[in-house]
Amino acid sequence: MLRQLSAHAPRVAFNFKSRRLVHGGCGQRLTTRALSSATVSPPSKAIVYDVHGPPDTVTKLVEVPAVEVKEKEVCVKMLAAPINPSDINRIQGVYPVRPDPPAVGGYEGVGEVLSVGSSVTSLSSGDWVIPSPPSFGTWQTYIVKNENVWHKIEKGVPMEYAATITVNPLTALLMLEHCVTLNSGDSIVQNGATSMVGQCVIQLAKSRGIHSINIIRDRPGVDEVKEMLKNLGADEVFTESELEVKNVKSFLGGIPEPALGFNCVGGNAASLVLKFLRQGGTMVTYGGMSKKPVSVSTSSFIFKELSLRGFWLQKWLSADKAEESRGMIDRLLSLVQEGKLKYKMELASFDDFSTALDKALGKLGSQPKQVIKF
Amino acid sequence: MLRQLSAHAPRVAFNFKSRRLVHGGCGQRLTTRALSSATVSPPSKAIVYDVHGPPDTVTKLVEVPAVEVKEKEVCVKMLAAPINPSDINRIQGVYPVRPDPPAVGGYEGVGEVLSVGSSVTSLSSGDWVIPSPPSFGTWQTYIVKNENVWHKIEKGVPMEYAATITVNPLTALLMLEHCVTLNSGDSIVQNGATSMVGQCVIQLAKSRGIHSINIIRDRPGVDEVKEMLKNLGADEVFTESELEVKNVKSFLGGIPEPALGFNCVGGNAASLVLKFLRQGGTMVTYGGMSKKPVSVSTSSFIFKELSLRGFWLQKWLSADKAEESRGMIDRLLSLVQEGKLKYKMELASFDDFSTALDKALGKLGSQPKQVIKF
Repeated sequence: MLRQLSAHAPRVAFNFKSRRLVHGGCGQRLTTRALSSATVSPPSKAIVYDVHGPPDTVTKLVEVPAVEVKEKEVCVKMLAAPINPSDINRIQGVYPVRPDPPAVGGYEGVGEVLSVGSSVTSLSSGDWVIPSPPSFGTWQTYIVKNENVWHKIEKGVPMEYAATITVNPLTALLMLEHCVTLNSGDSIVQNGATSMVGQCVIQLAKSRGIHSINIIRDRPGVDEVKEMLKNLGADEVFTESELEVKNVKSFLGGIPEPALGFNCVGGNAASLVLKFLRQGGTMVTYGGMSKKPVSVSTSSFIFKELSLRGFWLQKWLSADKAEESRGMIDRLLSLVQEGKLKYKMELASFDDFSTALDKALGKLGSQPKQVIKF
Repeated sequence: MLRQLSAHAPRVAFNFKSRRLVHGGCGQRLTTRALSSATVSPPSKAIVYDVHGPPDTVTKLVEVPAVEVKEKEVCVKMLAAPINPSDINRIQGVYPVRPDPPAVGGYEGVGEVLSVGSSVTSLSSGDWVIPSPPSFGTWQTYIVKNENVWHKIEKGVPMEYAATITVNPLTALLMLEHCVTLNSGDSIVQNGATSMVGQCVIQLAKSRGIHSINIIRDRPGVDEVKEMLKNLGADEVFTESELEVKNVKSFLGGIPEPALGFNCVGGNAASLVLKFLRQGGTMVTYGGMSKKPVSVSTSSFIFKELSLRGFWLQKWLSADKAEESRGMIDRLLSLVQEGKLKYKMELASFDDFSTALDKALGKLGSQPKQVIKF
């Protein structure tokens, strides 16, 4: 369990350069002399883990002493940051791209500029910023990083959307725009349609006049789920069991056969996506919630000419793509402001991080995306 | 079983335009009046099937009466034609692109021009030609088709190579040249390495300085098979059971991890190809000898960034690609003449078609490719 910060909590210094926590009084901990000659951050509270393991066991809340804000650095007071599945996998040590522990959790979020280093001109106090590309260690109250890390965004977007705009909505947008050329009137098919990416796919497709065929798990309250997705713009929503028919394409009605499918489940749910695809179609795998592999017949490859590939946002978050992805994030945030992009989230107090973590871990049943409010 | 031609064999007319056999005396069967005013073909003997079904049950040898050779047509005396698996699948009715029965079997082959229509200038008697793109109905002694069907080739190539150069060697060449850009020093991995395509892949890769890692079935006489493939230029040959290790890449030695893999087996043999592939690699499926699907983990798609697709020669045999594919066939035939491309075949007499068919159907154990000599 997460240990609450108390008089007995260990005091550690977080080295923002190496992104490593340094226990004890060395490292970046500021002496009175250093403090007197530089801008400094306030002390920060952070969710850290010293070793990989179960997130509800290895994470703890610690206090991080003040650090110097160097001339090109910006001190950001974090407003909100989500708990994404990939954050959990990083703490577990099973995600390929992760910081070495000890580390602060989190990867995306939004904050407000508190102070800037002496040579920073691109940002000023009060600006809202997100780390873009995302950057390890967003689960803390104050972050000091180079000004290049921060992308200024329009204020007025609800903070929970600004905090979550990269990992899921950008995945949806990139998958829709960079896998197959789609035109208005075309269609896509996806499983895991209730996921945050799935909800974004529906709305982003809709905004371009692209039909979406959506596959969801059989579950209690399926009618409400279908209604919710249709309200977002889904053309068709089917449960897996509804698709246990010889020819799923008979369900297409007037919608053209999709050239593109998205799979975040695997197993049978992936096979259903493949069944909907048209000749020469592409299925993009971006998740594997069922933990089952994707199985494809030889004739699907040869005679149906299907292509299968993966999508990993990480590949789009390299420095050379930063400008392009920031542009896409601005587009996504505009859609949010226009009311054309929404998804379900729950704001959780930082003080109650452990409950939010339990929800994100699925210990309390199906829950909306947990977003920590600092 | 194939019925031998006898006095009691049915006489049918083959309509070359519709590629349909017409029973009885109508259709293209020539009257004495027509014969007197046009070049005509000799009567032909053909392997035909009236209905789809088991090839050793539904095929029969029939005599096809003489037909007129129209002004743009060429009459070719067939020299040789192979029995390919896709020919068998067409007769069975399970191959997606197939003629409607009644039809003559066969799809590729080589012949010698016997006579040409009055306005044909591109070909003359004695030329060796192959149908290119391949054309249904090569299992017969004389074929009359438009001059555009025929591609003139250099004489001097052994007829069994000329007869078989398209379906398998062209597949190997196209897969090596059009799936992933490979340079000298790169490597590929393939299963089913003893197949005709597999043997061609080894030699075509070798001729470009590309290493090949080859996977074969566990079988009796495995050492001889390995020796045979290494003599063709294979760098490494492993049986499936030899690759039941944690890290197959430890077997690579100095060979770079392959960016491209070929799968014609499916099941475990396909998984082994995937295991050898490097980050971002592509596996191309062109067959499914095990009849088992290809199974891929989510992490292979996302974190290893593998792409999977199929290759179907049919797509390269359209009219708009005819010139390009004829050029590639000429290159392949040159390699044959230079002794740089060879593969195992067995010439079978047309009179003993039924034995050749039984061998091609696997009824007599593992056999070389059967090529009918007319």
